[in-house]
Amino acid sequence: MTILALSGLIRPLLEPQLPDGLDVRWFVTKEEALEVVPEAEIGWFDMYEKDAMADTLRAATNLKWLNSIYAGLDFLPMDVLIDRGITVTNGAGINAITIAEYVVMGMLNMAKGYREVVRAQERHEWLLDSPGKRELAGSKALLLGYGAIGKLIKPRLDAFDVDVTVVRRSGGEGILTPDEWRAKLGEFDWIILAVPATAETDGMIGADELAAMKSDAVIVNIARGAVIDQPALVSAIEAKKIGGAFLDVTTPEPLPQDHPLWAMDNVHISMHLSGRAQDKMFIRSAERFLGNLDKYLRGEPVAPVFDPQAGY
Amino acid sequence: MTILALSGLIRPLLEPQLPDGLDVRWFVTKEEALEVVPEAEIGWFDMYEKDAMADTLRAATNLKWLNSIYAGLDFLPMDVLIDRGITVTNGAGINAITIAEYVVMGMLNMAKGYREVVRAQERHEWLLDSPGKRELAGSKALLLGYGAIGKLIKPRLDAFDVDVTVVRRSGGEGILTPDEWRAKLGEFDWIILAVPATAETDGMIGADELAAMKSDAVIVNIARGAVIDQPALVSAIEAKKIGGAFLDVTTPEPLPQDHPLWAMDNVHISMHLSGRAQDKMFIRSAERFLGNLDKYLRGEPVAPVFDPQAGY
Repeated sequence: MTILALSGLIRPLLEPQLPDGLDVRWFVTKEEALEVVPEAEIGWFDMYEKDAMADTLRAATNLKWLNSIYAGLDFLPMDVLIDRGITVTNGAGINAITIAEYVVMGMLNMAKGYREVVRAQERHEWLLDSPGKRELAGSKALLLGYGAIGKLIKPRLDAFDVDVTVVRRSGGEGILTPDEWRAKLGEFDWIILAVPATAETDGMIGADELAAMKSDAVIVNIARGAVIDQPALVSAIEAKKIGGAFLDVTTPEPLPQDHPLWAMDNVHISMHLSGRAQDKMFIRSAERFLGNLDKYLRGEPVAPVFDPQAGY
Repeated sequence: MTILALSGLIRPLLEPQLPDGLDVRWFVTKEEALEVVPEAEIGWFDMYEKDAMADTLRAATNLKWLNSIYAGLDFLPMDVLIDRGITVTNGAGINAITIAEYVVMGMLNMAKGYREVVRAQERHEWLLDSPGKRELAGSKALLLGYGAIGKLIKPRLDAFDVDVTVVRRSGGEGILTPDEWRAKLGEFDWIILAVPATAETDGMIGADELAAMKSDAVIVNIARGAVIDQPALVSAIEAKKIGGAFLDVTTPEPLPQDHPLWAMDNVHISMHLSGRAQDKMFIRSAERFLGNLDKYLRGEPVAPVFDPQAGY
C-alpha cells in the first residue's frame, strides 16, 4: 500500500477527496512529521517553519515524490533532492493569477499617482488635477521572466495596449534572450521582474542597468528582492535616475523599520502580499495535487516539476 | 474664405497644422471671443469659464459647426444649438482610454485592499497578510453604458477573465437592455456605471437597486454623481448592504469637507480625476479636429456628433 505523509495544513481540503487504498499519515508538528515520513513514498511537508520542512525532507529516506504549495523552494536542501532522485512538484502558477493582477494594479497606481489620491481623501481634500498623468496605453514594458506569472502578465498588459517585450532564455519570435535585453533597457517605460530566484538572476539589476534606464522608467519587482542590487536602487531613485519602483519583494523581508525605501516618494512597498491577495491558493493546490496523485498512481508524469539542479 | 473662431488654449497644437486658405481668428478672453465669433462658420470655444462659452455660443450667429474638447456639454444652451441647426462635435472618447484604465485600477485597489497597504507603508509596517483577497479573475461585472468608455473597459476586464455583462439601449447578443438588468443585479460582483448623464440615467441606482445587489458587490461610478441616489448609497454602505464603492464622481463636486463619504472604510473618492490622469487629451483633441476639418471642408460628415436633443 502506497504510504503518504501529508501536512495537516491541507487536510480539510484533501481528505474528503483522496482515493481509497492509500496509507495516509497526517502530521501537524515537526516531531510528528519526523515520526511518519521515513516510510513515506509521497510527501507534502509544508509547515510554517521552513527549517522544519528541511529537516522533515532529510528524514524522508524513502521519498519518491515531494509536493509543495510553494513555488520557490530554495530553503530545502537541494542536494538531498538530487541525491535521492526525488520528483518534486511545486506551487508554480498556483498564485500566478493574483500576482499578475497585482502587477497591473501596481503599474496603474504608479501611472495615476493614486497613492496621493488616497492621501487627499484622508484629508477630505478634493484634488483638481491628477497627481499622475501616465497612460498604460502606448507605453513599453520589458518583461523579464516568462514563467507561469509572466505568461499571465502579458495578456493583461496587451489588453491595455502596452507594448510588451518578453525576455526568456529560450528566445523566439519577438523575444529577447538574456544577452540581448541590457542593450535595449533605455527603450522601456516599465521593467517588470518576474524571473525565478537563481544564481543567474541574483543582482541582475545593478547600477549599470539602472543607469541605462529611462529617467522615468518604473521597476516592478515581484520576483525576489535579491534580483535587484538594492543599495544601487536606492541611490538611483534618490538621484532621480529612474522614475520609481513598485517592490513586492525586498532584501531583507520584512524590510527593517528604518530602511530608506519605506519613505521614498516614488517607491511602493507591497510586503510580498501580491500572491496572498486571494483565498483560492489552498483550493487550487489541493486540486492540483489530487490530479497529480491520480497520474502518479497510474505511472504517468506529474507536473509542474521543480528541478533542484536549476533551482526552479 | 471660411472663417474659424478658435480658442487660444488649443492654438499651439493647431496653428502649425492648419491647412492654407482659411481665415482663422484666435481669441483668449471672452471679450475677444464675442468680437470675433459672430462671423465665424466654424468654432472651438473652449474656455475655463463655462458661462463664457455659453455666451460666446449665443453670439455666434453664423456658426455651422461647433467643436469642443468636452464630452458632456450640458452647460451650453441646447436650444441655441437646436434652433440654429449647429453641428456639434464633442470630446467623447478623448479621455476614454484614461478613464477605462482608472476603472480597472479602482477595481484592483478595492479587490486587494491596497489602500491599507499604502497606509501600512506610511507606518513602515510590514503586513503579513493581504487586506484584500479578491481576484478579478472569475468575478462578474455589470457594465452599464457601452459608449466610448464602456467599449474600452470591457476588453481590459476580459483580459482579467472577468465575466462582463453589458447593458445598452440597443440590446444585442449577450447584452441586457435597460428593462432587463435590474432583475439580475444580485448576480454581479461589480456594478460599473459608464452611462451618459440624461434624464433616464438620473438616480438609476437607488435604494431598490442597492438592496438587490450582493452584500459584497462594489459599485464603480465614472459617469455622473447624479446617476446614484447618494443618500441611499451612504445608507447601504453604512448598513453593509453592499461591499463598497469607487466613486470618481459625486454630488456635488467638489464633495463638501464634512460629507460622510470621505471617511467611509469601503469608499474611494477619486475626485473626478479619472479623465485627467493623462497628458494627451489636448493632442488627441487637436488631431481629431484637424481630421474633421479636412472632412468638413470636403463636405463629408464629421464625428463624433453630439446630439443636443438627447444631451449626449
